[in-house]
Amino acid sequence: MKSERFERGSKKINELMEGADQKTIKGLGKIAPDLGNYVLEFIFGDLYSRPGLDLKTKQMLTISILATLGNAKPQLAYHINCGLNIGISREEIIDIMTHISGYAGFPAALNGVSTAKEVFAERDKEDLETKPS
Amino acid sequence: MKSERFERGSKKINELMEGADQKTIKGLGKIAPDLGNYVLEFIFGDLYSRPGLDLKTKQMLTISILATLGNAKPQLAYHINCGLNIGISREEIIDIMTHISGYAGFPAALNGVSTAKEVFAERDKEDLETKPS
Amino acid sequence: MKSERFERGSKKINELMEGADQKTIKGLGKIAPDLGNYVLEFIFGDLYSRPGLDLKTKQMLTISILATLGNAKPQLAYHINCGLNIGISREEIIDIMTHISGYAGFPAALNGVSTAKEVFAERDKEDLETKPS
Amino acid sequence: MKSERFERGSKKINELMEGADQKTIKGLGKIAPDLGNYVLEFIFGDLYSRPGLDLKTKQMLTISILATLGNAKPQLAYHINCGLNIGISREEIIDIMTHISGYAGFPAALNGVSTAKEVFAERDKEDLETKPS
Amino acid sequence: MKSERFERGSKKINELMEGADQKTIKGLGKIAPDLGNYVLEFIFGDLYSRPGLDLKTKQMLTISILATLGNAKPQLAYHINCGLNIGISREEIIDIMTHISGYAGFPAALNGVSTAKEVFAERDKEDLETKPS
Amino acid sequence: MKSERFERGSKKINELMEGADQKTIKGLGKIAPDLGNYVLEFIFGDLYSRPGLDLKTKQMLTISILATLGNAKPQLAYHINCGLNIGISREEIIDIMTHISGYAGFPAALNGVSTAKEVFAERDKEDLETKPS
Repeated sequence: MKSERFERGSKKINELMEGADQKTIKGLGKIAPDLGNYVLEFIFGDLYSRPGLDLKTKQMLTISILATLGNAKPQLAYHINCGLNIGISREEIIDIMTHISGYAGFPAALNGVSTAKEVFAERDKEDLETKPS
Repeated sequence: MKSERFERGSKKINELMEGADQKTIKGLGKIAPDLGNYVLEFIFGDLYSRPGLDLKTKQMLTISILATLGNAKPQLAYHINCGLNIGISREEIIDIMTHISGYAGFPAALNGVSTAKEVFAERDKEDLETKPS
Repeated sequence: MKSERFERGSKKINELMEGADQKTIKGLGKIAPDLGNYVLEFIFGDLYSRPGLDLKTKQMLTISILATLGNAKPQLAYHINCGLNIGISREEIIDIMTHISGYAGFPAALNGVSTAKEVFAERDKEDLETKPS
Repeated sequence: MKSERFERGSKKINELMEGADQKTIKGLGKIAPDLGNYVLEFIFGDLYSRPGLDLKTKQMLTISILATLGNAKPQLAYHINCGLNIGISREEIIDIMTHISGYAGFPAALNGVSTAKEVFAERDKEDLETKPS
Repeated sequence: MKSERFERGSKKINELMEGADQKTIKGLGKIAPDLGNYVLEFIFGDLYSRPGLDLKTKQMLTISILATLGNAKPQLAYHINCGLNIGISREEIIDIMTHISGYAGFPAALNGVSTAKEVFAERDKEDLETKPS
Repeated sequence: MKSERFERGSKKINELMEGADQKTIKGLGKIAPDLGNYVLEFIFGDLYSRPGLDLKTKQMLTISILATLGNAKPQLAYHINCGLNIGISREEIIDIMTHISGYAGFPAALNGVSTAKEVFAERDKEDLETKPS
């Protein structure tokens, strides 16, 4: 039986991306089941479910942290997608990357834009949102 | 004669902290005058003055980026102070650090809290804001 | 009422350093209570309490990760202390730092040795262990 | 109308790689126009155009910084190409990576060599320079 | 003539992976011969050949350092392979990545698992070890 | 008996700072003797003694790498001192930090300037060089 935190995390991750709980479990459950549980329990059941900052702000922070780290491309693409799903605009994603240039340097900013570009192109193909005019 | 970007940056940095333009010039102007100019022109005249994200959001991003980098303590303390000056609450600062724990790890989060604690204590001594009850 | 994970984490952290649960709560409980809970629940109640690697191995990994990060000095000092408490020798701590030189570079290794030196000196003063001859 | 700094940056970036200003504008202009301008204005119009260090020294520094960061592969490849264009030899590129091994660790050095190798192979195909005997 | 350290390093690297000395020399010898020598002499002839920690412990440290750095994927894959060759189990590799999540953050842990997964799959294809049931 | 590489490294480190070999051995020899040897043998006996880049260029690279890493302050101060000893000017040190701002971000550049300032002040007190007018 899954814990209350796991259930709360599952619900929260699905707010950001439909069906993401199943995808996480499928991807990590076999090879690293504890780590898969921690993603749902700690990241989404604790950090994302605690009060304080609203969901959009948390998501903008996550994107800026991941772009700053610079070696977390799969996670950055994932969270850009989540951000777009909950109403962060493409322009805001690019604004975050642009702001990063001064603090984490231009390479981090440029690679962040490059990841965003790939996510945008993927979504355009899948017609998930109205293309920016 | 100072450029338009420099003047715009001076005005913007002073919104975040009164008299910060003079302090920057005093601190960097003699030893690294070009770098001092770039701080005012590029960071505050360009990044902070461009449209898009509002000032509070930009400041929260700056704080999360600096705490993620983990080796930018003087800048983090400075920008926590700026953030408090423009209406980010102490609780929100701590919320940012807490959120960071999952992505940049607990040491980055704990050291961010530690820097925030020092800034809060300094401000309590200087009576710059109402203490949280 | 504290969760079962919290209780398990308290017990585990105290295995590494007597009374460390109270010190964590005292240090973080007021300013960042959720983060304080996560330290006990996630780091010690989950990661340190899960089966698999034995305690000494986990502690050597923690020390190598913190020395590699290079910007986690308070946490590194803390975990060197914990390591010595559970039977890792001073020589092994230095062996870890020496090994790091090839992968994270000499500055990380040298700063790790420097932190270890401070911890060793502190413990010598407090007479916590037999000094190496 | 483009600023004087933009024009200066365009000219400078083209010294390093013919037509690079147009390529930058094409790549970033649509998705992140402000960031594209900053690349030309700040990186090339300010940093690369200021007096002090000569162009070759600046370029060697850029290469060492990017290889040290370790997560800036596209920028590293770009700047290795620029370096070769202005007369840095392949041997000097490899000397930089070799020197890095002691400070940023062997992985950074080895990945730097690997990026250099790809750039060299690409240039050999395009016959851009005399192959080393 | 190769130095004594080189010979010692060759022997040691081959304990971790059969024929790895020749592969290193082949890969680096032409383009970066000094760096290739340092890999064998310093990393394997010095660090891996010095007394103190046993080989398995050194290898677990190397894996945790590389996963923490986060931008050393080829080296991480290489050393996961070496670890499996000398008797570290797949479960232990995953345990290391899981432990990392708390200190270097979840992205480092998740990317470490992802690299491990690729190594495991490659080995399954080559039938190098018994598949975990 | 010390190896040839050790003797060569001792001589080289003393070119950069008089008596630095004895200081290194004194600082590391007791607590981490192997690491102390590797500093002299590998960093100064191999990297700094190999042909290719001249000493001044190597030293400028070392300074830029250490400032980029951002968590190597004692080593950065040390190598700024070495650089000044062999004829790199204070202005060139500041030029390096200024150049870094675009690639590793402003915090790395500002903290590099701050370390340089401390080294310059220390040297002014000790009257080691003519103060810049």
